[in-house]
Amino acid sequence: MPTSLDTGTLNFSWSQALIGGLVAAGVERAVISPGSRSTPLALAMLRQPGLDCEVIIDERSAAFFALGAARASRRPAIVLATSGTAVANWLPAVVEANLAGVPLILISADRPPELQGIGANQTMAQPGLFGEQVRACHAMGTPKQGFDSKALSTLAARAVEQASWPHPGPVHINQPFREPLIPATATPPTPAATSVRTSRPCSQPDPAAIAELAKAMAGRPGLIVCGELPPEHGFAEAVASLAEHLACPILAEPLSNLRFGRHDRSHLIVHYNQWLSQQAAAVGKPAWILRFGAFPVTRSLQGLLGEHHDVMALVDPWPRWSDPAHRLSHLLHASPLAVCQALLAAAPSAAPCGWLASWLAADQGHEASQSSAYARLIPHLMAALPAGCPVFVGNSLAVRMLDSHSGSSDKPLEFFANRGASGIDGNISSALGIAAERGRVVALLGDLTCQHDIGGLAAARGRNAVILAVNNGGGGIFEMLPQAALPEFERGWLTPQNIDFHHAARAFGLSYAQSAVGPALTDLVQAAIASGGPHLIEVTLEK
Amino acid sequence: MPTSLDTGTLNFSWSQALIGGLVAAGVERAVISPGSRSTPLALAMLRQPGLDCEVIIDERSAAFFALGAARASRRPAIVLATSGTAVANWLPAVVEANLAGVPLILISADRPPELQGIGANQTMAQPGLFGEQVRACHAMGTPKQGFDSKALSTLAARAVEQASWPHPGPVHINQPFREPLIPATATPPTPAATSVRTSRPCSQPDPAAIAELAKAMAGRPGLIVCGELPPEHGFAEAVASLAEHLACPILAEPLSNLRFGRHDRSHLIVHYNQWLSQQAAAVGKPAWILRFGAFPVTRSLQGLLGEHHDVMALVDPWPRWSDPAHRLSHLLHASPLAVCQALLAAAPSAAPCGWLASWLAADQGHEASQSSAYARLIPHLMAALPAGCPVFVGNSLAVRMLDSHSGSSDKPLEFFANRGASGIDGNISSALGIAAERGRVVALLGDLTCQHDIGGLAAARGRNAVILAVNNGGGGIFEMLPQAALPEFERGWLTPQNIDFHHAARAFGLSYAQSAVGPALTDLVQAAIASGGPHLIEVTLEK
Repeated sequence: MPTSLDTGTLNFSWSQALIGGLVAAGVERAVISPGSRSTPLALAMLRQPGLDCEVIIDERSAAFFALGAARASRRPAIVLATSGTAVANWLPAVVEANLAGVPLILISADRPPELQGIGANQTMAQPGLFGEQVRACHAMGTPKQGFDSKALSTLAARAVEQASWPHPGPVHINQPFREPLIPATATPPTPAATSVRTSRPCSQPDPAAIAELAKAMAGRPGLIVCGELPPEHGFAEAVASLAEHLACPILAEPLSNLRFGRHDRSHLIVHYNQWLSQQAAAVGKPAWILRFGAFPVTRSLQGLLGEHHDVMALVDPWPRWSDPAHRLSHLLHASPLAVCQALLAAAPSAAPCGWLASWLAADQGHEASQSSAYARLIPHLMAALPAGCPVFVGNSLAVRMLDSHSGSSDKPLEFFANRGASGIDGNISSALGIAAERGRVVALLGDLTCQHDIGGLAAARGRNAVILAVNNGGGGIFEMLPQAALPEFERGWLTPQNIDFHHAARAFGLSYAQSAVGPALTDLVQAAIASGGPHLIEVTLEK
Repeated sequence: MPTSLDTGTLNFSWSQALIGGLVAAGVERAVISPGSRSTPLALAMLRQPGLDCEVIIDERSAAFFALGAARASRRPAIVLATSGTAVANWLPAVVEANLAGVPLILISADRPPELQGIGANQTMAQPGLFGEQVRACHAMGTPKQGFDSKALSTLAARAVEQASWPHPGPVHINQPFREPLIPATATPPTPAATSVRTSRPCSQPDPAAIAELAKAMAGRPGLIVCGELPPEHGFAEAVASLAEHLACPILAEPLSNLRFGRHDRSHLIVHYNQWLSQQAAAVGKPAWILRFGAFPVTRSLQGLLGEHHDVMALVDPWPRWSDPAHRLSHLLHASPLAVCQALLAAAPSAAPCGWLASWLAADQGHEASQSSAYARLIPHLMAALPAGCPVFVGNSLAVRMLDSHSGSSDKPLEFFANRGASGIDGNISSALGIAAERGRVVALLGDLTCQHDIGGLAAARGRNAVILAVNNGGGGIFEMLPQAALPEFERGWLTPQNIDFHHAARAFGLSYAQSAVGPALTDLVQAAIASGGPHLIEVTLEK
C-alpha cells in the first residue's frame, strides 16, 4: 500500500482488503443497512465482484434476512450497519444464529477511540456488545497508512473459519473509521484477494463408542428420533438403511427433512403427536433411543425422551449439549452420516419381531384425524407445494401444527424454522432470506408472528415469496396452555391482533388474498406460486 | 409466607412481592409482551393496584414505548418479556436509555438453572446479556418456599434507586421460574408492600469551582449553550436571569425546552444554524462558553464548541463526560439550576457593552429565510400545535430541521427526541409512550424513521397521537453529506422507501391524510389534534 493515501481513500482501500478477503474465503452475500460511518465498507461491498448485496433499512430485519440466507446456503453472510443502536438491533438474530448454528459475519462501523465515551453522536461501547452470543469478536483498529492487505484478508479468512467450525455461528467485526469517509479521488478497482486454504476434519465417530453402542442396541427394541439437523448429503439414505437393518422405526420431525423425498421412508413414524402420549403402552417401551439433531418440538416426543431408557444416545456434530430432559446415556460428537455408516458396519442384530410393525400400525391409524381448521390447513398446503419448494414455518403454533399434520410423501420438500431460540421475531425476514438463496419460499406464519416482523415485508418486493398468515385471532398457542383459564387470558396472553393484513400487504407492495381452509386455499397457493412475486395470503380459521 | 405453596402459587406470590415492591418504590407503569414463562409476573402486574399495564407484542416496540413514557415521567417504567430472543429485542431501547439517562426496569423471565445451556426451548444466557449498557443486573434465584417478601421488596427498591440515581438508566432483573406457572387455586389479593424511603442529594456545585468560574467569566464576552437536558423546575427562569445579569446570549436548542414558554426569552439565539458558520467573525469571539446538557445536534453549534476558548465549562448533573470536541476546561457535576443560582449569587460583572446586541441582531435577520419545503414545514407545524403539546422529533434530519427553523415563542411546548444514541429505530413507539404519559403527542418523523418502526403503530389505537411522516423519498440526511456524490448513492444511502403510508396507517387503524407544505397542513394538523385518536399525516416534499 502507498504510505500517504488521503483518509477517505485509506478507509476505502482498507475496507476493500477486508471485504475482498471475506469473499476470497467463500462469502457470497451481504446485507447492508444504510448509514454514514459505515460508508467505506458499504462502498467496498457494493463494488466487490462476486458479492450479492441487499439493502434493508431495519437492521433487525437485515440480520434475520442474512440469517435465513445463511441457514439455506450453510455459508456465512455479511451484515453491515453503522454505529449506535443500529448494531443493537442485530441481537435477536445473533442469538438465533448462535443457538441454531448459523454462520454470520456481523460488521459494525464505529467511531474512532478518541470519540468513545464522551457523548459523540451515535456512539456506544460496541466491542463485546454481543458477549457470549458470538463465536469471536474482532475489535479492529482504525485504518493505518501502509497497511498490510494480507493481514486483513487473513483476518477475514479467520473470521469465516470461526463462523463455520467447529460450531457455526455469528462472528462480530467492529471497524472504527476516522473522517472523511469518502475517497477524495477516483479509487482503484478491487484488487484480487488471496485467502487461506482451510480444511475441516471428517467427524468420524470414536470406534470404541460405536462398538459399545452397537452392543447395547443389538437385538433389543429401539427408536431413532430425528429433530432439526443441518443437511448432510446422504444422511436420509443412511439413516433409512440403519433403521431397516435394526428393524426399528424413525420418529422424524419435519425439520429433520426426512419426511419428504424419494429416499426410503418405509420406517418413518410421522403422526406420533396424535397418539404417542395416549398409546405409548400399546406399542411397548424401547430399550434404546438414538437421537439425531435438536431436541424435539412437540410435547409428546419431549415426553418420550423424558422417560428413563437404558440407552439414550445423542449424535451431534457440534460442540453443544442438547438434553433438557437430563436423560442422556451416550453423547457422540460426530457426523450423523458417519455414525449411521459405522453402526451399519458394526451390524448389531435387529429388534425383536413385531416391534417395528406395532409402531407402523399405530401410526397408520392416525392419518386422517385432522379435526381443527388449523390441522386441516396443513394437508391443503402440502398439496399445493411444488417439488423442491423451500418452506419456512413460524413459531410457536405453526411449527407444531406442521409437525402433527404434515405427514410424509415422496415429493421432495425442504423445511426451515428459527428453532435455535424459537422466537416469533424476524420470521418474515428469515423466510425472505431463504427466498434470496433459493429463488422462492413459502412461509407459514401465525398472525402475531407476522405482526412482530411486519416491517420485514419491505424486503419482499421482487421475490417469489408466498406468506400464509394464519389468522386465529392472536396467540393461539396459549389456548393449549393453562393460561387459558385465567380471567386475564385475553388481555395478557391471547392478545387478539388488530392488524389489517390486507392493508399491511399493500403497504409493502405484496398482492393479497384471503381464504378459509379448504380446496380453494390449495388453488390460491398454487396460483400465487405460479404467478411469481410476493404474496400475502391471510388464512382465516373458524373458531 | 407459608412454607408449602404449590409451585404455581409460589411463583405468583413471589412475583406479587417483587412487583408490589416496585410499585411501592414509585413505579406506576408496565409494558408487557405476552409469553408463557413470564406468566407469574404478568399476572402479578395485571392484578397490581396502582400499576398501569400496556400489552405490546413486539418487545422492541414495547421497550421503546416504555422508554418514551419514562422519558416523559422521569420515573422508571417496567418492561416484561418471556425468555429467549424476546429479551434480545430490548437492546436498542436499552442502549438509548443508557446513553440518554432514562430509567427503565427490564424484567426477563427465564428457565431455571437446570434447563440452561442444554438445548431447552427459548433458553439462552440472559444474565449479563446487556453488559455495560445497564446500571445493574440482578440474577434472581427461582422462587423458594417460605421466602421473605421484605427481601424482595427491598431488592425492588434497590433496583428503582439504581435506575434513578446517580445516573438514571436501565436496570435488568432476570427471574427464572420452574413449572407449573399458574397457581393451582385462587390466589390471595396483592398484599400491601412497604418500601425503603430513599432520598437523593441536592447537587449543589462546589463553591470553589463557582468562584473560579465567576472570576473567569467576569466582564468578558461569553455564551450560554443549552442542549437537551432533563427538566428541572425553575431552570428556564434561572438561566434567563443569569444571562440577563451577564448580558450574554443563550444559544438554545429545541430539546433544551427553553425556546417555547412564558419565561424570559429575550436573550435567546435560535437561528444560529442559519448564520453562525458564516458570520461568526462578525459577532465576535467569546472568551467563555457555559454549556448545559448534551452536546449539540447541529454542525454549526458543534463547530463553535470545537474552537478553542479560554473557558469551556460544562454543567452536568450526571456522572458522564460529554465532550466529543475535546475542548472542556471546566466540568461541574451539579444541578444546572443550582449552578445558575450560585453564579448569580457570585455576581460576576457583565460582558462588554454591545456583545449581546450584536448576537441578537445577527439572529433577528434570519427569521424568514426558510427556503426548502422541509424548512417551511416547521413553522406551519409550530403554528398548529396547542399550548402545552408534547412533540416528539425523530432522527436524523427532522431534529436538525426543528433546530434550524422552529424559532421561539411564548406558547409553551415540550420537545422530546431519542438523542442518547440518535437512532432512527423505535421512534414511533417512543412517541406513543409519551402519549401514554401526557395524554397526547405530535411526532415529526422522516419516512425511513417511520418505516423502521412501522410495527410500532400497533400501540397507537385509542391514543391521541398525530404522526407526521415527512416523505422526502428516503434518507434525505445523506443528501447533505459527501455520500451524495457517489455513483452508488441512491442504492446504498438514499434508499428511496417504497412503503405506502396510506395502507400502513390503515393496517393499524390510524386515520390517514396527505398534504404538501402550506397553510392547509396547519389546518390538517389542528383538525387531527382536535378530533382525537391516532392519525398519520404524510407530508410530501416537492424536490
